[in-house]
Amino acid sequence: MIKISIIGSGNVAYHLVKTILKTESLDLVELVVRNSESVKNWVETSKICTYFDAVQDADLYIFAVSDDAIESVSEKLIVKNRLLVHTSGSTAFDVMNPNNRRGVFYPLQTFSKNKKVNFKSIPICIETEYESDFILLEKVANAISDKVYKINFAQRKALHVSAVFVCNFVNHLYKIGSDICLENQVPFEILLPLIQETGSKIEILAPENAQTGPAKRKDIVTINSHLKFLSDENQKDIYKILTKSIIDDGKKL
Amino acid sequence: MIKISIIGSGNVAYHLVKTILKTESLDLVELVVRNSESVKNWVETSKICTYFDAVQDADLYIFAVSDDAIESVSEKLIVKNRLLVHTSGSTAFDVMNPNNRRGVFYPLQTFSKNKKVNFKSIPICIETEYESDFILLEKVANAISDKVYKINFAQRKALHVSAVFVCNFVNHLYKIGSDICLENQVPFEILLPLIQETGSKIEILAPENAQTGPAKRKDIVTINSHLKFLSDENQKDIYKILTKSIIDDGKKL
Repeated sequence: MIKISIIGSGNVAYHLVKTILKTESLDLVELVVRNSESVKNWVETSKICTYFDAVQDADLYIFAVSDDAIESVSEKLIVKNRLLVHTSGSTAFDVMNPNNRRGVFYPLQTFSKNKKVNFKSIPICIETEYESDFILLEKVANAISDKVYKINFAQRKALHVSAVFVCNFVNHLYKIGSDICLENQVPFEILLPLIQETGSKIEILAPENAQTGPAKRKDIVTINSHLKFLSDENQKDIYKILTKSIIDDGKKL
Repeated sequence: MIKISIIGSGNVAYHLVKTILKTESLDLVELVVRNSESVKNWVETSKICTYFDAVQDADLYIFAVSDDAIESVSEKLIVKNRLLVHTSGSTAFDVMNPNNRRGVFYPLQTFSKNKKVNFKSIPICIETEYESDFILLEKVANAISDKVYKINFAQRKALHVSAVFVCNFVNHLYKIGSDICLENQVPFEILLPLIQETGSKIEILAPENAQTGPAKRKDIVTINSHLKFLSDENQKDIYKILTKSIIDDGKKL
């Protein structure tokens, strides 16, 4: 059994803990947190550690904390020559305590506490400071997920920026769609099949081939009627910039 | 059997023809097109009509043509006191030939010829000029889809604008994500599970509760590192406007 400790109490920590507890080849040694109250239902009390200078021995310490806390939290943890990894898409491993071997264990997914996820289908991007640690980290990743990728920092940063576009910004467009429906007394649920289809189309078609709509058709009459319809200046600005970007893309082809 | 003729040769016409041919209670009388060449594999040749002034009798004529062609094409069709409907999200029914009873049959989905769709799960928004025609149109819609909504013009316009945000603009964000991956030698497929999860999350959570990412966390360090990473000015501008919009949304809560 590979002995793992998780440091953190956020969404990623939560889903990692749940998954490790269910995985036979992995042993959750401790959950290391500042405040035990917020995680009391996650694991049995004996596995919760709030003393960063007295953590138990483990093969792997996973820091699932916010990006700006990785450095300071890893400094607090009094361990030496252990494998420490963080879960961030946009941070180099070398911000972590240099008395240890370091790496990255980046699960590329959007985590919310109220939504179950199946870790088997979540891509895990791994990287280690030393080649000799790669095998262990790969074993852990393979135990959790069917999709493990060796990804360096430059590639990981690109994935993280892309993820902001295809996930965070996409969700915000759902929010705008939902706001427009609400203002106009139409149930947003009517749009759900369209949202699903838009996502599933690009499993089959490249995004440039899946593009539809007035901007793609350069249908200026419809574009103008939409801009007239929108009363919110922010929605109008977003409509304009994305429409222009689709039209400009069409010119490049 | 309800007798239906389809006018048009685009993606919507294609999928409607395929579906009507498979539906027992519906009879495809004719496919009316300018040029028979483009549709020769859709239906048997005897069902293709290229003479707009000599169309056969049908209970319902569905105009699946581009928005700006609805008016002129419906004028060409020499019929009187027939039920004519168009499939547009942003056009009033009264642009169609006034010698007839008119309505709307708007399937809210993104159609590409190379991607099969299951019409059963596609919401169909219907509206008729006369109450007495509503029953027939509802019957046709119910034969094709499990999700039929009575939607007036104002609501339909709101749905259409929302659809541009949650489908066309979303797909364009996929395109940008794909471009960033390509430039940085990472396979875009790593992002597909994230894309699926982002779409399926909002079946369970409202979009404001599903929002994650640096803008939601007001993580200025990550936002700035992403802006530094992006070299394309257009991608930068889109990143900025959507990040600002997410942050401003957070302030309203």
